[in-house]
Amino acid sequence: MTSYAVTGASRGIGLELVTQLLKDRSVGKIFALSRGEPPSALQSLVSSHSQQLYHVKASVDDTESVQQAAREVEGKLNGQGLDVLVNNAGIQTANPGGTKTVSPEDMLNVLNVNVVGVQRVIAAFLPLIEKGKEKKVINVSSTLGSIAWVDKFARGPVQAYKISKAALNMLNAQYALDHADTGFTFLAVSPGWLKTDLGGQYADLDPHVGVAELKRIILEASPAQNGKFVNIHVPGMEDAHGHYDGGEVPW
Amino acid sequence: MTSYAVTGASRGIGLELVTQLLKDRSVGKIFALSRGEPPSALQSLVSSHSQQLYHVKASVDDTESVQQAAREVEGKLNGQGLDVLVNNAGIQTANPGGTKTVSPEDMLNVLNVNVVGVQRVIAAFLPLIEKGKEKKVINVSSTLGSIAWVDKFARGPVQAYKISKAALNMLNAQYALDHADTGFTFLAVSPGWLKTDLGGQYADLDPHVGVAELKRIILEASPAQNGKFVNIHVPGMEDAHGHYDGGEVPW
Ligand SMILES: NC(=O)c1ccc[n+]([C@@H]2O[C@H](COP(=O)([O-])OP(=O)(O)OC[C@H]3O[C@@H](n4cnc5c(N)ncnc54)[C@H](OP(=O)(O)O)[C@@H]3O)[C@@H](O)[C@H]2O)c1
Ligand SMILES: NC(=O)c1ccc[n+]([C@@H]2O[C@H](COP(=O)([O-])OP(=O)(O)OC[C@H]3O[C@@H](n4cnc5c(N)ncnc54)[C@H](OP(=O)(O)O)[C@@H]3O)[C@@H](O)[C@H]2O)c1
Repeated sequence: MTSYAVTGASRGIGLELVTQLLKDRSVGKIFALSRGEPPSALQSLVSSHSQQLYHVKASVDDTESVQQAAREVEGKLNGQGLDVLVNNAGIQTANPGGTKTVSPEDMLNVLNVNVVGVQRVIAAFLPLIEKGKEKKVINVSSTLGSIAWVDKFARGPVQAYKISKAALNMLNAQYALDHADTGFTFLAVSPGWLKTDLGGQYADLDPHVGVAELKRIILEASPAQNGKFVNIHVPGMEDAHGHYDGGEVPW
Repeated sequence: MTSYAVTGASRGIGLELVTQLLKDRSVGKIFALSRGEPPSALQSLVSSHSQQLYHVKASVDDTESVQQAAREVEGKLNGQGLDVLVNNAGIQTANPGGTKTVSPEDMLNVLNVNVVGVQRVIAAFLPLIEKGKEKKVINVSSTLGSIAWVDKFARGPVQAYKISKAALNMLNAQYALDHADTGFTFLAVSPGWLKTDLGGQYADLDPHVGVAELKRIILEASPAQNGKFVNIHVPGMEDAHGHYDGGEVPW
């Protein structure tokens, strides 16, 4: 049985991932991290899976809160390691803005959550993951963070978000390098453009479609992929704008 | 005559660039931006070139200070535009740290100066640059920010710095895209590993060598290079660790 911790599990991709993981027989304990009290959808999942699913509070922009969450997860693992960590919590700027219109405060805030937040979480959970059987750290990135692909996504005026995901890809690459040949898999994954609060109603895909792929990628991830950045595969949409061919995304 | 604004001109690469620009006959007014009173080396340059070189205060981590600097530069340009902006100000973490040891506070601070700082400066100076004859914005990046080259620089335990320069490369790419085919040149340049306070005493090159190349790249920059990321060329060191072949650096 494989144990999981998922950040940003209150809604959107994180909540859907927890929902789908609960249906997989290989999955053991799941720690659903969110910064507030669990909203009703998550709370009812926790109530109906009280031996398997635990809610743990963690604001990724608050180092002490993340460290406290890691201690709580450690306590619930009874001496076992954590097998898989999914860094999913992430934000868009409060006021989406292009190069000229984004405010410095918004940009700094996005970097604090999407980049430094992941640094806080990995640093706090690494000792537990080192003791785990799978040693997988999945960083939910975005094709919008691909510098090589800026032309493809020229229409999205989300300067800070794109910068934050490029930065996250470097963070992922650095951890992968530092943990090469030790059984670790640090993997950046773009889950597709999904209809969540962040993705908006005009997104390409329903969350369950992208998250099914995210889950497959997580389950199949192996040390041979350490440091890579991969896209989801949606049959028939390999040549769509999001390039959902399951391949690697260029930096 | 071409006008220049250079951030972080108090020492290191910025000060050397100002020194070398002053010797070039194509160069007109130079605005040397630094966050404090000019240190003696810069002050004596200003005194001996009082009709050409102006010191302007700007802390790139302070939006209001940057906007005030842009107003001051505008005033001194007497209705002319600014031709070239060089975003050079940048920092290393207070305590250099690898993936495991960097503190979240240090990382956020580096991102605030090296990434959001550049956003602040470009946003404030863009109206002046639009009125300029050259429309060049040079962002001093680093090969350490190349995700494709992480293996090359595995030994440098500077997680936050590398992340910040990858993020800066995306910032540069986004601005380039938004200003394509309008005469602008947004160019990320790696100046080589230079013996400055930041680069340290074991760096590859004396500052004047890398800065001569940086200056050449700035003078030769053209809209055909808009959005690119280029390295310096040091004859005989094309195959050295820093790969100083004057070519493009991969993302
Ligand atoms: N949707 C897409 O199209 C898409 C595409 C590519 C990548 N992604 C990435 O996928 C991830 C999830 O996105 P989503 O679409 O599910 O967004 P979402 O529906 O807006 O959900 C964001 C999640 O992150 C959490 N979060 C935000 N700030 C946090 C903080 N400071 N501390 C802890 N948790 C925090 C939120 O918690 P609260 O409920 O407490 O706010 C929520 O659980 C993000 O990293 C996003 O960048 C999304
Ligand atoms: N040296 C290298 O090997 C190397 C290699 C690649 C890229 N670079 C890049 O080159 C640029 C200059 O580096 P350097 O080697 O010259 O470093 P340096 O000698 O340490 O000088 C850094 C400069 O940035 C200024 N600065 C720092 N924080 C600032 C802030 N908040 N507001 C305004 N100015 C600020 C400093 O001003 P104060 O004097 O007031 O502190 C100083 O002028 C940086 O962007 C660096 O990342 C350097």
